[in-house]
Amino acid sequence: MLKLYDLSLADPDVRPSPFCWRAKFAMLHKGLSFETVPVPFADKTDYPNQDHGLVPILIDGEETVCDSENIYAHLESKYEGAPFAQSNGERAAADFYNAWLGLNLFPNLAPLMFVRVHAAAREDDKAYFRKTREKRLGKTLEEAAATPGLGGKVEEALQTLAAPLVRHRFLGGDQPNIADYNVFSVFLWIRVTTQEELFDAPQAVDAWQERMLDLFDGYGRNAKRVS
Amino acid sequence: MLKLYDLSLADPDVRPSPFCWRAKFAMLHKGLSFETVPVPFADKTDYPNQDHGLVPILIDGEETVCDSENIYAHLESKYEGAPFAQSNGERAAADFYNAWLGLNLFPNLAPLMFVRVHAAAREDDKAYFRKTREKRLGKTLEEAAATPGLGGKVEEALQTLAAPLVRHRFLGGDQPNIADYNVFSVFLWIRVTTQEELFDAPQAVDAWQERMLDLFDGYGRNAKRVS
Repeated sequence: MLKLYDLSLADPDVRPSPFCWRAKFAMLHKGLSFETVPVPFADKTDYPNQDHGLVPILIDGEETVCDSENIYAHLESKYEGAPFAQSNGERAAADFYNAWLGLNLFPNLAPLMFVRVHAAAREDDKAYFRKTREKRLGKTLEEAAATPGLGGKVEEALQTLAAPLVRHRFLGGDQPNIADYNVFSVFLWIRVTTQEELFDAPQAVDAWQERMLDLFDGYGRNAKRVS
Repeated sequence: MLKLYDLSLADPDVRPSPFCWRAKFAMLHKGLSFETVPVPFADKTDYPNQDHGLVPILIDGEETVCDSENIYAHLESKYEGAPFAQSNGERAAADFYNAWLGLNLFPNLAPLMFVRVHAAAREDDKAYFRKTREKRLGKTLEEAAATPGLGGKVEEALQTLAAPLVRHRFLGGDQPNIADYNVFSVFLWIRVTTQEELFDAPQAVDAWQERMLDLFDGYGRNAKRVS
């Protein structure tokens, strides 16, 4: 049985990490069974290797695979089933969608999200989470979250994402591909961490989210959310 | 013989329009021979239909096809040869690249370019060009071009484009696809219209530009530029 180390919040059944979501959807795409091991942010004691304190970490028999990109590559080379992309053009596009997430979506979304992840985190994780994220933001979580216009800028960025989804069911075309999982992982991060509506997504993006939530017997839709 | 109506500048051999470049590369991709008919911006007398004053316009025997997207669709359905994309995932990604061009690149690039296209345009076209573009910009060409930081913002946007080109020769993977032609058309617009270096592109983007310039016996590289 494949085993995935997966970040958890105060409720250990709530799993926020977008990079862990990518690994979980990659295994579902390949039709693989797996179990997840919830781990905290701060205390690395239960991580398979204390020197590598970042998830996702996949244990596949004797093999340990770290990082969602390496997990995709490992699963693609080892397991049958639908490939994660149909062509090198789709693989190149997945790199473009990822860069867009990092450069256009994340800078405005992260300040909205970090303060909410912090609120939902285990008490033991709060100081560690605050310290690491405030270093990244260059200000306090609360100052960052109060930046005017963040939701509007997220909505503006999502106009770009709407374009392919007006004419196609998935970023992968008729079926989801690696780009769908990568982008959707960010929406699951939001969905499980907060019940608030942080922004209005374009209609085509909302409809795609519903299709993504339905995949694999509603794996994303059934994921536990903070209440 | 296919015939394409193509915008020209004061030198009729200099062809700036990115949408016409898309149509030309689409025909080259299909291995088709074609001739181009230079037309001015303002005077629509020589356009095949005076009610449709926008190029590209393709004349294919009895058929007249307007708009680069319709020209792609026409050529794809009528002619053999390599398809413009390998999969619906690549077609969806082409819509995403186009939206990114329009929302992330164009707003900072257009103010730099319009003033230069205006300078290189036919005397008869200058008033028309100024009027239509100033309406779009909401300010004069010169005010728009003087907006601080435009080049830096173009460079920032091009970081996203660099991501797929670090690992792949083309946006289409091993071979160029429709996304390559669409994005490259903007670089040709710049290249033929000005000898100035308006920004520094990331190394991966520069290397891709060189590969695109070499395609089809250097069709882009040999295109006449304003001197």
